[in-house]
This record gives sequence, C-alpha cells and structure tokens, in this order.
Amino acid sequence: MTTKLNRRLRLGMVGGGPGAFIGDVHRIASRIDDRYELVAAALSSNPEKSLSFAAKLRIPRAYASYQEMAAAEAIHPEPIDVVAIVTPNDTHCAIAMAFLGAGIHVMCDKPITTTLADAEKLQAEVARTGLLFGVTHTYSGYPMVRQMKAIVASGEIGKIRMINVEYVQGWLATPMESSGSKQAEWRTDPARSGPAGCLGDIGTHAYHLACFVSGLKAESISTELSTFVPGRRLDDNVQAMIRFEGGARASLWSSQIAIGCDNNLNIRIYGETGALEWSQENPNYVRYTPLLQPTQILSRGGGGLNAVGSRLPAGHPEGYLEAFATLYTDLAEQVTARLEGRAPAPSATDLPTCEDGVAGLRFIEAAIQSSAEGTAWKPLR
Amino acid sequence: MTTKLNRRLRLGMVGGGPGAFIGDVHRIASRIDDRYELVAAALSSNPEKSLSFAAKLRIPRAYASYQEMAAAEAIHPEPIDVVAIVTPNDTHCAIAMAFLGAGIHVMCDKPITTTLADAEKLQAEVARTGLLFGVTHTYSGYPMVRQMKAIVASGEIGKIRMINVEYVQGWLATPMESSGSKQAEWRTDPARSGPAGCLGDIGTHAYHLACFVSGLKAESISTELSTFVPGRRLDDNVQAMIRFEGGARASLWSSQIAIGCDNNLNIRIYGETGALEWSQENPNYVRYTPLLQPTQILSRGGGGLNAVGSRLPAGHPEGYLEAFATLYTDLAEQVTARLEGRAPAPSATDLPTCEDGVAGLRFIEAAIQSSAEGTAWKPLR
Amino acid sequence: MTTKLNRRLRLGMVGGGPGAFIGDVHRIASRIDDRYELVAAALSSNPEKSLSFAAKLRIPRAYASYQEMAAAEAIHPEPIDVVAIVTPNDTHCAIAMAFLGAGIHVMCDKPITTTLADAEKLQAEVARTGLLFGVTHTYSGYPMVRQMKAIVASGEIGKIRMINVEYVQGWLATPMESSGSKQAEWRTDPARSGPAGCLGDIGTHAYHLACFVSGLKAESISTELSTFVPGRRLDDNVQAMIRFEGGARASLWSSQIAIGCDNNLNIRIYGETGALEWSQENPNYVRYTPLLQPTQILSRGGGGLNAVGSRLPAGHPEGYLEAFATLYTDLAEQVTARLEGRAPAPSATDLPTCEDGVAGLRFIEAAIQSSAEGTAWKPLR
Amino acid sequence: MTTKLNRRLRLGMVGGGPGAFIGDVHRIASRIDDRYELVAAALSSNPEKSLSFAAKLRIPRAYASYQEMAAAEAIHPEPIDVVAIVTPNDTHCAIAMAFLGAGIHVMCDKPITTTLADAEKLQAEVARTGLLFGVTHTYSGYPMVRQMKAIVASGEIGKIRMINVEYVQGWLATPMESSGSKQAEWRTDPARSGPAGCLGDIGTHAYHLACFVSGLKAESISTELSTFVPGRRLDDNVQAMIRFEGGARASLWSSQIAIGCDNNLNIRIYGETGALEWSQENPNYVRYTPLLQPTQILSRGGGGLNAVGSRLPAGHPEGYLEAFATLYTDLAEQVTARLEGRAPAPSATDLPTCEDGVAGLRFIEAAIQSSAEGTAWKPLR
Repeated sequence: MTTKLNRRLRLGMVGGGPGAFIGDVHRIASRIDDRYELVAAALSSNPEKSLSFAAKLRIPRAYASYQEMAAAEAIHPEPIDVVAIVTPNDTHCAIAMAFLGAGIHVMCDKPITTTLADAEKLQAEVARTGLLFGVTHTYSGYPMVRQMKAIVASGEIGKIRMINVEYVQGWLATPMESSGSKQAEWRTDPARSGPAGCLGDIGTHAYHLACFVSGLKAESISTELSTFVPGRRLDDNVQAMIRFEGGARASLWSSQIAIGCDNNLNIRIYGETGALEWSQENPNYVRYTPLLQPTQILSRGGGGLNAVGSRLPAGHPEGYLEAFATLYTDLAEQVTARLEGRAPAPSATDLPTCEDGVAGLRFIEAAIQSSAEGTAWKPLR
Repeated sequence: MTTKLNRRLRLGMVGGGPGAFIGDVHRIASRIDDRYELVAAALSSNPEKSLSFAAKLRIPRAYASYQEMAAAEAIHPEPIDVVAIVTPNDTHCAIAMAFLGAGIHVMCDKPITTTLADAEKLQAEVARTGLLFGVTHTYSGYPMVRQMKAIVASGEIGKIRMINVEYVQGWLATPMESSGSKQAEWRTDPARSGPAGCLGDIGTHAYHLACFVSGLKAESISTELSTFVPGRRLDDNVQAMIRFEGGARASLWSSQIAIGCDNNLNIRIYGETGALEWSQENPNYVRYTPLLQPTQILSRGGGGLNAVGSRLPAGHPEGYLEAFATLYTDLAEQVTARLEGRAPAPSATDLPTCEDGVAGLRFIEAAIQSSAEGTAWKPLR
Repeated sequence: MTTKLNRRLRLGMVGGGPGAFIGDVHRIASRIDDRYELVAAALSSNPEKSLSFAAKLRIPRAYASYQEMAAAEAIHPEPIDVVAIVTPNDTHCAIAMAFLGAGIHVMCDKPITTTLADAEKLQAEVARTGLLFGVTHTYSGYPMVRQMKAIVASGEIGKIRMINVEYVQGWLATPMESSGSKQAEWRTDPARSGPAGCLGDIGTHAYHLACFVSGLKAESISTELSTFVPGRRLDDNVQAMIRFEGGARASLWSSQIAIGCDNNLNIRIYGETGALEWSQENPNYVRYTPLLQPTQILSRGGGGLNAVGSRLPAGHPEGYLEAFATLYTDLAEQVTARLEGRAPAPSATDLPTCEDGVAGLRFIEAAIQSSAEGTAWKPLR
Repeated sequence: MTTKLNRRLRLGMVGGGPGAFIGDVHRIASRIDDRYELVAAALSSNPEKSLSFAAKLRIPRAYASYQEMAAAEAIHPEPIDVVAIVTPNDTHCAIAMAFLGAGIHVMCDKPITTTLADAEKLQAEVARTGLLFGVTHTYSGYPMVRQMKAIVASGEIGKIRMINVEYVQGWLATPMESSGSKQAEWRTDPARSGPAGCLGDIGTHAYHLACFVSGLKAESISTELSTFVPGRRLDDNVQAMIRFEGGARASLWSSQIAIGCDNNLNIRIYGETGALEWSQENPNYVRYTPLLQPTQILSRGGGGLNAVGSRLPAGHPEGYLEAFATLYTDLAEQVTARLEGRAPAPSATDLPTCEDGVAGLRFIEAAIQSSAEGTAWKPLR
C-alpha cells in the first residue's frame, strides 16, 4: 500500500491501562507497520493511573477521562485521526458515541456493545457521521484467512455446503473468577461483559470468521448454551447449528472449559468442488483439497498465493500481532485514502465494520434466546 | 488371553462375495490372532457365485444360501461355533435370526437391522437363546480407544462435561451412485440401507464411540440431516447435539461430502480434571491433558499404559485390521470361556453387543425424527 | 495377485519361541493374506520348549532342533515350501545353509549373518541352489514406501540429489541390558548380535530403505559410531554420510538413546524436480512436493496411486503387520509362480533378497571400519 | 524489563534500502517493543536512493553514505545510541569498525564478516572500545528456544549426548541467480557473500542454535559441502558431523535445494534423562520428553514456563518478527542499563555477541577446509 500523506496518523487510545493485555496488543499492532503515532490517551477509568501510565508510555497528551479526551481532541489543532477503544465491553458504546461525535474515526474491540439495540444505535451514528469504524475481529487479519476468503470468492471450491468452526479454550475449566484472575472476573461478570460469557468472548469470533471466509449470510441458529463450572454466572460452552442462505449449514462449537486447548480457533469449509482448513495456532498454513485430488499445504508467502497482508517470506512465521497489525493498517489505509481523496487499496476493505459488530450482537442475542427456548431456531438477519 | 481349547473355533460366513470389501476385512481379522478357522460359508446371494468363490477361498463347506447353511450347520456333527454376517443391511436381521435359531453365536455388521422394531426383536431372540452376539463397531477395538475408556473409567479426567465426535468422509461429494460405484449404490439406496444414509453408515459409529469411551448414557438428540448431492435419496451430512445423563453434552458431525477427508473419525472428551483426544487415521496415539499440565502424547505400547489388545511395541503402528481382529478375539474368548466353563478375560467384554446394536437403531430413528421435525429433541433411551 | 495353486504354501519356522516378539510377528504376517499354513517348527534351541510351544500353537510337525527339522523336511512327502528363520543373528547363517541344502526356500530376518564373509558364502549357496531367499526388511513392505519407489522410478522428482534417512529409538537410553530385558541383552551382546549394536539392529534398515526407495547404488560411507550408555559393549548411536553413484548424497542417523522416540524411521528424498517424505509411525501418508508447487499429502488407497500391497481404502490405517505380511505374500507369489511355471506378479520382486542382505553386512563392516579409522571413507560396493 | 530512561533509544541504520527484505524486518523488530526511534540512516550504497528512501520512511537524519553518517553521528549532540548494519556480508566489517570508532553500539547481521581474520579484528575492536555488539542470530530470540536453553541449563535432561539440527530450504533448487532474483544473486556470489553459500547463509544459524541451546563448546567438525545446481559458484548443501566437549555429538544438515522446505530449522537434543525438540515453522511449541515418561507439548505462554520474551498468552502465536524484536529489546536493555548505571535484566544477555559472530566464521572456515580435504576433521576452537 502506498501513501502520499507526509505524516503518520495520530492515534488515541481509551483503555489499555496497566496490566490490560489487550492494550499492549493494540499498541504493538499499531506500531508494526509504522502508520500511526500514539499521541493521546485516557488509559484507565482511574484518572491518576491514566495520567501516570501515559507518562510511562511517553504518550504526549494524557487525559483523565475519555470524556475529557473526546472534548479536547474535538477542538485540538492537530487532533487524533483515530481512537482505539479497548475498555471493558459495557463501556464501548458510550465511548464510541463520544468520539464519533467529536468527528474521530474509531477502532473498537468486539463486542461493540452489550445489546443489539445499542449496536444498532451505534451503527446509525456511524452512518450519520460518515466516519470509519473498524472492529478488531483479529482473525480476519491473518493472511491465510484472507487467502481462504479469496479462494472461496474465486469459486474454486464451488458452492459452499458445510462449515465447521470451533473456538475452544481451556483456561476457564476451573472457577478462575473466584481466585483473583482479573481476566476471568470481568469475562464472567454479566455487569461488565453483558449477558454472554464464552458466547460473546470468543463465540462471536468463530461466527465472524465463518461469515468472513464464506461470504455467506447466516439465516438462523439453534443453540445450546451450558455453564459447566459451578457458580459461574455466564455460559462457558456453546454448541450451535447455523443455517446459511442457499442451503449451506454450519456447526459451531465454542468453549472455555476444553482442557488442553489454548486458543484453538479452527475452520473447515466444504464446497461442491473443494475444501479448506485452517487452524489459528499454526496460522501460516491452509490445507486445500480440490475435488478428487490430494490435499495441498498452502504456505503463507508461498508461490502463487495472494500476498496481501503478509510481511515475510514463506517459512518465517507470522502470528497474532501481525494479524492485528493488518487491521490497523487497513484502517490507516482507509483514513489516508480519505485524506488524500482517493480510493483505498482494495484489501483494506477486509477490515470488519460496525455492520459486522451489529451482526455479532444479533448472533449473541439470537443464541441466548435459542438456548432459553430449548434450542429453538432464531433468525440471524 | 489363554485358552485350553485344543482347536480353533469354527467360523462360518454369510456374505462377503467377490468384490465385497468388508468380507475380506472379516476374513483377515478372523485370522490375525489364529483363533478361528473359516470352514463354512454362503458368500453370495447368487448360489453359483457362492459356491465358486468358496472354492477359490478353500472354504470346505460351501452353501448355496444362508438358509441352507443354517439348517445344515444346526445338525452338523462339528458345527460352526460362530457365524459372521457381512451382507447388506436389510438382510442382517433375518440371517441373524436363522443362525440364532440354529444355536450358533453371531458376529454381525452394523446396523444390525434397518428398523428399531426389528432390532428389538433380535435382541429378544438373543436373550431367549442365551447366545453371544457381537457387533463390529470396529473402532472400539483400537487399543488407544480402550485406553481412553480406561482413563475415563478410572476417574482421571473427572466427570465428563463435553464430547466432540466427528466421522467425516469425502468420497460421496459427487453422485458416485450414478457412476457405477457398487459401494455408493447400496449405501444411498433406501431399499438396501434403510432410511439412513451417512447417518446409518458412519454416524452410528461416531455415536457408539462417544458412548463406549465415555461410559455415559445418552438421553436425547437434536439433529439436522442434509442431502447436499442433487438426486441423492438419503442424507449425506449429519449435525447433532446430544444430551447425556448427568449434564454432559456432545456435538456430533458426520458427513460423506467433506472433500479431503478419507475416514476421519475423531473424538475429544473434556472432563472436570482432564481431556482426551484421538484420531482414527493415526490411531496409535492419544493426546491426554491433565488439568493445568502440558498435553501428553500417549503412545500405544508405551510404558504404563493398558496393554490390552496391543500386539506390537510402541512405534510399530497397528491399524484398522488389528482393531477388527480384536473384536474377533473378544468373541473367541467369550465363546471359548463358555466351552471351558470359565469366565472370559475381562477385556473381552468390551465387544459391542446386540444392546449396542439396538442403541444404534434408536439413535438412527431418533435422529431421523428430530430432523423431520425441525431439529426437535427426541429421546435416546 | 491371482494363483491357481489349490493349496496354501506349507511354512516352517525356526525360532520364535515363547516370549520372542518377532516370532509372533512372522506368524501373524504369514496368516494375513492366507497363503501359508504353518505346519512345521523348531521354535526354540531348547528341545523341550520347542515341542511344547509347537503343541500350544497347534503346529502339526514339531522338531527338537533345526537340524532335525531340515533333515526330516528334506525327505518329507509334503515338505515345507518355505522356512522362516527368526532366531538370534549369530545363528541365521547355519540355519539358512541347512534349509537351502534341504531344497527349501528361505525367509530370513536381518542381518542375514554376522559377518560379510558369511553373507557372501550364503549368497553363493543361494545362487548355487537357485532357491528363493527373502529378507525381512519390513519397511520395504509398506505401500507408501513402494509408492515413493514408484514415483522416483518414474522420474517425477528427477535425478536424486540428497537423502536424509533416520531410524531413531529411545528405549536403550539407560542400561536396560543390566536390568533383565531379554530384548536389550542380546542386542547389546557381541556374541549374539555380531560387532554392530544400533548399527546392525536398525541402522541397516535405514540404509536399506534409502537404497530401496532411491534405486541408487551407494559408493562409500563415513561413519561416527558412539556408545553413550556406560558399560554398553556395542554402539548405540550412528552418524553417517554416504556418497551415492551419480553424485547423490545421504545423511543417515540411527540411535537407540533418543529419548522420546519409539520407532522413528523417516526418509526424505530430494530430487531435481520434486521431493518425498515418509514417516514410519504414521505410515499411510507421503508428503510429495513437485518443484514450485504446494506440498501434497498422498494417502494410501487414495485416487491415482499405485495400489500394490494395500488392503484397505484410504483412511483405514494399515500398519507394521500388513507391511510384514506383504513381504510374505511377495515370497508366496514368487514360490507359487515357480510351482505353476509362470512369472510372478511384478510387485512381488520388491521383496528384499539375499543380495540386499549382503549389502547390509557390507554397510555394517564399512561403517565399523570407518568409525575405527576416525570417520575415514570406506567403499560400499 | 523496566527502564527509567525517559526517552526511546536513538537508532541508526546502514543498509535496508528499497526492496531489501531484511531492512524491513529490522525496522519492524525495532518498533515492536517501543524502545527505539529510527532517527538516522544511510539506507543504500547509492547516495540518491539513500536520501529519497529515508525521506519516504520519515527518517529525520538521512546520509549519503555510512562513512558520512558515522562521522556526523560521532559529533552529533544527540547521537544515535545504536546502529543496525543490514548490508551485504562483505561490507559488515568496515561499517562496524567505523561506528565502533564513532563510539556507537552495533547490531549486526550475520555473518559479521567474510573471513575469520576480519572477525577476530572486529572482536578486538569491540573489546578495545568496550561497546556493545549484538548479532542477529534471530532464532535465539524465540521464547521456546530460550525455554529449551533454560531446561538444558537446569540439568533436567541431564548431560547432553546427541544433537540433531537442520536448517533446510528449497528456494534455490533451481538456478534462481540466473533468472533475476536479487536475493539469490548476492547469496550465490562469492564476492558479496564470501566463500560460503548455504553454509554461511543458513548453516551458521543452525550451528549457533545448537551451541546456544546446548551451552556446549564445539570441538571439531567433519563436513561435506555439495553444489547441486549446475553453474552455481557456492555450496548449496551442507552435511556435517560435530564433536562437542564432553563427548556429545551433533549431526547438522543445511540445504537450499530441499524442495518443499520453506525455512525449516529444527533442533532435537537428547540428554541422559530427557529430550527436547523444536521447529521454527511452528515455533510456539516444544516437545519435551522426560526419561520413561510420555512426550509433553510445552506451549509458549503456558503455565510453569519461563515467560521471558513472550508477549502473548498461550495459543496466540508469536513468530519471526517477535523473535527478532526480542534481540532488539535485549540490546536496548543492555544499552539502557549502561546509561542508568545498573545491571541489565539477566535475559538480555541471551543476545548473541561478537564472540558468537567469530564462532560463526570459525565454523565456516573449518567447514570449508574440512570439505576441501575430503571431510577431514577440523578444530572449531
């Protein structure tokens, strides 16, 4: 991607205070391709921490709160171009509204809100302002995920019949939330996470991945939510069957009690004339089987493949941070293209949007209703 | 297993004529551990073929039909001890009834009948005669499957929470049944296979495996059956959610349109304190993860493992034929123990029984009904 | 393979008494394809054990010694067609000479003798008698090994440049020979094994595999033998570089102190236009990479492959016993073809011969000399 | 790692002009942990390109040549703290000498020179100046490589017996250097690469990895260099046997004609009481086998492991760029510690040094001599 803009974009961040894993990820990701400079931040809901941590990170414009930050940046002579929202789920919506109101593009963690109604309000505000709104469905930033999407779109595997997608972890197999794990606490607390546990935390990533790669619209869902760990207040296991337009079917399984699984996101897609398989934990390879031919191992960076989003030659593994960085670069490209009055590079439009965020909330609400009604089918559109 | 019986058991076979894959498998499997001699057969429904193929295979007592064979063996001075039934599904029941009536133990392919009602009649006849009845759910003969069963039974992984079982193939991704494949023809013909396609052919194996390893009773099922190949008369893709007693859940996926998959039977079991994973295509290993510890690769024949059913040291792969042979040896051990008036070796009772066969038909009928009623939950017991 | 012979071949066995792992392997292997009947045996060097174990195995003609057996079979009206020699290495030669003298074809474990001089004498006797002599280099019986050989022979991967072959185990990482393991004792005892430890036990298999698949003649070798376990009398680790005719090079590593390795025989072959890779522990697959194309996973039984030696469809794993059985079937086919006055099926000639056995001894002696002279290059032909 | 220094380190770069893969890698790596700011550069030997590319990359102090840069930075009020040298091999030495002379710490690509004599001169200059000198043996920056080193150092696998290390690629299987590939051209050109081809390009990485993880000193080497591609002027295949102090042995294989291999660096280490295995292409896992126990899969970020150098939780893959970044962070930590008058964090001393660079040249020269003398053993110390 080329750019004529003679400066890095100015990035602001809300959230990502001391100890917040995802804040570091956003900051590293925004640096990798050198298209952002982090110049403003409200890193914590605690004003004091917010200011001191910003100083430690050498961020020049530190704010005590996101409200103060949105107000100040709105009138700053060199305002941030983009704000990254990396706070707990229940605060995403208000923060996003504030920065959209200030005329600032947004990169927001998923889920974008905790209710579908809020997500739709946010979508309306994005539409009204015409601003850009990216959602960090990280896995769509992996080059081989985009490779699969390109293969599907090319028609090489024919009409899709069946998708199997799984996102399973094991770290919540015990009541971690009662033993001092901050990461476990907010994820299992309905007040901060919303009504979905595993479903919202990782199930939505699986759902997004299936839609992203297949390019299909989901029609309805039947879901069984379970809570296996005694005392837990939200689901920790999700089984779902999904019907897609055109007759395709999907099985989705997401869990946080699957001992032995670290961050096991896998997708397999079967069409009329071929199949694809990818695993996030070894993300530089796709298994591709053309009908009646041997399975091929496609290697990121290997000959004849779509090179978009890849920084290194084959065999030099890229990982999660590079996938994340690609989403940042996609947004940088879109913002820069606007500033320069040109169309963005086509690949930049793979960045998940507010519409994807709304679809995620619709998935969560439909799944919860389906499970509450004994796995009754619920619409997804 | 030790035996004092001073002869091999006499084995008869019905079905398994020229070109029948599974007939060869049964014959090889019955030879591996040298506890059977194949002395009688009605190998084809075509009397001429039946006799000529028996001659070619050097089987001394060749019959023109199974009826003739059952009648003759019933009064033979040295009758067969066991009959193997390896015919198309729709004939299993009548043949089994005939040999039970002749006082002969049975080894029967699955599904044991094409309706639950017939299966229950057969079960009653087995009970009435007191004869032994083995069902070739092959995968329960793999040493590492039995190893998993032993680990679960020992309580090492705690109470089971979630099971994911898949049995997926790709060879029916095109309408093979219209292009002269005998194997495809009967499997997609309701008259010969019964009302289930993929569901009955391989879905039942997945279901049996989940029950066998977990030791749990299934309570109910919600199923989505699909037929993706145009013109096909039976299902070729099965998605199911299963509820087990005690709250365990399972996801089951079985397919014959999954391009790139040969015979991909995999099971993953998650308990409160550990997890297990096994794949049939590389069957000599189990992945075992104790809670909060690294995943271990258990190797068949390796130190400290349950050696039952294993013929070779670690690293010398055993496969499908050895698993099949173990079922034959289990039955031989049970028959021999009766002849010698002693209890069989405990491991021999892992052989699937008529009761498992009935459970398989119950699974098939419940799944078909569930799918017909829009994935409504149906009881499995 | 078709045969008109109206009987099974008569097989005799020398060695394979109680507790001898390889005896069971030979017996099972000889039964799998139903072309042999085990009718005569001298199973132990202890006459009493020999007779009682034969009775237990229901072998009709039991002999107290191999000498007695060879003499009796030589004049028996229905003599054995083939004798299997499965005794300790130091006795192979004399036993083979005795049965060749009796006009009986031989299937012999490797190494065929403990010295090159003896091996050459044996080869001369084989030539003199015109009898068949098979050597159980088991790994050449795997269908995917033969598939690789066929691909190489077809020229698809071009002229071979480099071969990497490894055969590594870990079970002798401690002084097992001092703690009562019979298997460890004879393998580390120069009197019974000859002058080579790991080199002769498994290094020869690796060497044979490289020659078998590549079809190349080895020219010379540079070897470093090590003995890592204190007190061990023979080598337990072999590093070698081999030069082949035409400029190809090989690295060979064989070890019995490689903790974590069960029976890890792997071969990788690189030609001018393609590459192949196979691992014995998951033997049903070959990785094949044509130049500038993605790696393909070839699956035994899959479409378009050489089906020779395969008994089951793709995805139904075959293993070590089936590979071993293929060697027995190869010999049966060769013997039967002679009896019927016809040419054997071409694939049957893949059976390793006495010439391969001699090459194995030449490899052993050259490697030992090379190591003794500080890795000096020694000729292999 | 904590730091009190209230600024990022100032980084300069020599080399890494347009199209130079490794220049981008260095720049990204230096940004990931936010401890450097790239403020000065002489990016190309072409002065015009050097200046224009620096402008494009928004590097404030652009120089026409490294000589000019070293002279200017030596007297700059805010000079660079560190210079990264990412030019072709034959220029490393002179550039490094210039910046050491200017009092600037160095991060240099390997090989640090093209002759051992030069390397020793450089080492003397490093010693004389007392400056820091890092070498980008990238693979030593992988967290799981450091995990292995820590396990070995802890004594858990006992005294090391055998190491197998491989670094094999396939991209030079054809004469790429004749078809316009810049990457192939300089690597196969003795004038720019020095006397070693594959040996110097990647063989040295394999050698360094074996020494780094084992902590052992190599004593001598026997090497067979081959050039398989017609017309190529340097080796493209390296086979070596290495003797280490204390009796350990290693086999090393490095190749650039291994079709199907992207960047296949693997190491296996066998000690008296355990074994370790790691593969660069899936770098987040180590296979660890304690004696007589099952193999364990250690996962980067998993419980109980050495967390040094890891940025993400288990299951979120890190890759090559993060490993590279760790080397930059190690150097930053060492430089910062000096500036602050404190000891660096212990892990920072894992950064390869000029001494490692000298060892690399000694390895190259010994290997070339050994091969020239028919694999004669040559000293490595």
